[in-house]
Amino acid sequence: MTQVFINGARDDLNVREFQSLDPSIQEIILAATEARKQAYCPYSNFAVGAALRTSDGTIYSGCNIENGAYATCICAERTAAVKAISEGKRDFVACAVVAQQDNGFTTPCGVCRQFLSEFVNGKDIPLYAAKPTNLPLRVLCTSVLQLLPNGFSFANGK
Amino acid sequence: MTQVFINGARDDLNVREFQSLDPSIQEIILAATEARKQAYCPYSNFAVGAALRTSDGTIYSGCNIENGAYATCICAERTAAVKAISEGKRDFVACAVVAQQDNGFTTPCGVCRQFLSEFVNGKDIPLYAAKPTNLPLRVLCTSVLQLLPNGFSFANGK
Amino acid sequence: MTQVFINGARDDLNVREFQSLDPSIQEIILAATEARKQAYCPYSNFAVGAALRTSDGTIYSGCNIENGAYATCICAERTAAVKAISEGKRDFVACAVVAQQDNGFTTPCGVCRQFLSEFVNGKDIPLYAAKPTNLPLRVLCTSVLQLLPNGFSFANGK
Amino acid sequence: MTQVFINGARDDLNVREFQSLDPSIQEIILAATEARKQAYCPYSNFAVGAALRTSDGTIYSGCNIENGAYATCICAERTAAVKAISEGKRDFVACAVVAQQDNGFTTPCGVCRQFLSEFVNGKDIPLYAAKPTNLPLRVLCTSVLQLLPNGFSFANGK
Ligand SMILES: [Zn+2]
Ligand SMILES: [Zn+2]
Ligand SMILES: [Zn+2]
Ligand SMILES: [Zn+2]
Repeated sequence: MTQVFINGARDDLNVREFQSLDPSIQEIILAATEARKQAYCPYSNFAVGAALRTSDGTIYSGCNIENGAYATCICAERTAAVKAISEGKRDFVACAVVAQQDNGFTTPCGVCRQFLSEFVNGKDIPLYAAKPTNLPLRVLCTSVLQLLPNGFSFANGK
Repeated sequence: MTQVFINGARDDLNVREFQSLDPSIQEIILAATEARKQAYCPYSNFAVGAALRTSDGTIYSGCNIENGAYATCICAERTAAVKAISEGKRDFVACAVVAQQDNGFTTPCGVCRQFLSEFVNGKDIPLYAAKPTNLPLRVLCTSVLQLLPNGFSFANGK
Repeated sequence: MTQVFINGARDDLNVREFQSLDPSIQEIILAATEARKQAYCPYSNFAVGAALRTSDGTIYSGCNIENGAYATCICAERTAAVKAISEGKRDFVACAVVAQQDNGFTTPCGVCRQFLSEFVNGKDIPLYAAKPTNLPLRVLCTSVLQLLPNGFSFANGK
Repeated sequence: MTQVFINGARDDLNVREFQSLDPSIQEIILAATEARKQAYCPYSNFAVGAALRTSDGTIYSGCNIENGAYATCICAERTAAVKAISEGKRDFVACAVVAQQDNGFTTPCGVCRQFLSEFVNGKDIPLYAAKPTNLPLRVLCTSVLQLLPNGFSFANGK
């Protein structure tokens, strides 16, 4: 598993400084950081925030929401996504995920990668994984399709 | 499985006329009916809407959102719930679910019952299952704890 | 949420002594207790075992299997069930669940109730929740349909 | 999304002839093909089989098992995996997935990638995606970590 460290020693080419990113990207990272404060995570104590921008410019953000039956937990990325989709917005142009782990960036889990890939629609969705602290902030820049190569799709079922 | 039919022949005691319900309940049923229009359900073609009212009076609504990998689907009830929770609202006072099946009311699936039960907090959440058509509208009146008796909880983990 | 305690003070009518149960039921409770030893639960440290008997008399057992992404966890009941189903056995006649919580029996979560209800086929599946210790062993006797009243079904989709 | 086609025109470098694979790999592909026959998929009519070999040489196989509540579906890969894990076998050395789609190989969904990645343990698990027909059989050769790059892990929680 490729691990990316913020001290730069082993950063891969996709890690960039927050300040060097487009303001529209900075904005969703900050939205994800803010949304993270609402996380309901009494089981893991691991708070995650996420934000998605849709093609009309709107930002939808969310946090992880856990459950005593772990299988029922919903991640921050899916929370943000269903908020947008249920408002009729399915055309995502960028995604940010923010959480604090010492040893690397927190990327979306496989469930969220699968969920988001449904809405890629022949394009791709850039995805930015960041930490809420450790300034100067560094950001892993990737995308939904990079994170789910050779993705499962079930075209016949649609 | 107790099935409840709208023709009245086998209605159970918990089925009531829409018009007889409190206006605040009518309002969330209508919100769920409206939210249902945003359903993303190309695999099942089965659209569901849901709405939750929180203790401050706000209504959060959502629809089901499917995925080619069925396990990744998120129901309308959870969509509505995560919208509220991610906005800092976890104190639910009523829930409505709206979908169209000929042979009975559409109640929450087990996943959604489990998800909602996390936020019952020693009380209960009344739940109303209705259909978008077939007026005069009839409504199955139940609750989250009635639908998940002897619920699983994992208190030690919190 | 109805809680049932083993000290008898608040036991409900469905709690029975292990020794009073049919030997075929005792057998699946012991199988679930044994299967529990294989639980992979580094995140919750909450081990669960389950066992199902199919109509041909075979017992299939399983444990809970967790994941760093909590939503991906699979419970003991579903582990046992998929083992049977993938061997061509879908006709369940009894289910046992075994785990240790101080304050009540561990019943199936909503996901597992939903999963098992798919295979009820117009009958019902008796379900026994027990603890691995605290002899003389007491057992909560219930059923899949009792635990998922007014169950969601999507008959049109089949 | 990289699509791989069996007609060879757009095959990527990881597609190989079944006959050229190691007999131990051929064996799990055939086991997955056989397990697929037990698929319970009345909602999608899309049958999938999977097989895993553990380090002691044993093969565990499974099929997909669907549910009226789609979120409760369990894929073939996870069915095979929980069978092994619940028998105390967590050291996977190879995985095969078999299903029939006209336009490409069926790879594991994100949920299954996440589930399997928990058991990679610093190594990786080769993964073979094949079709049950269309001989001479061609096989997409990949791995769990290739399919889940920059994987989510939550080391602190363990
Ligand atoms: Zn996730
Ligand atoms: Zn549901
Ligand atoms: Zn469960
Ligand atoms: Zn899968």
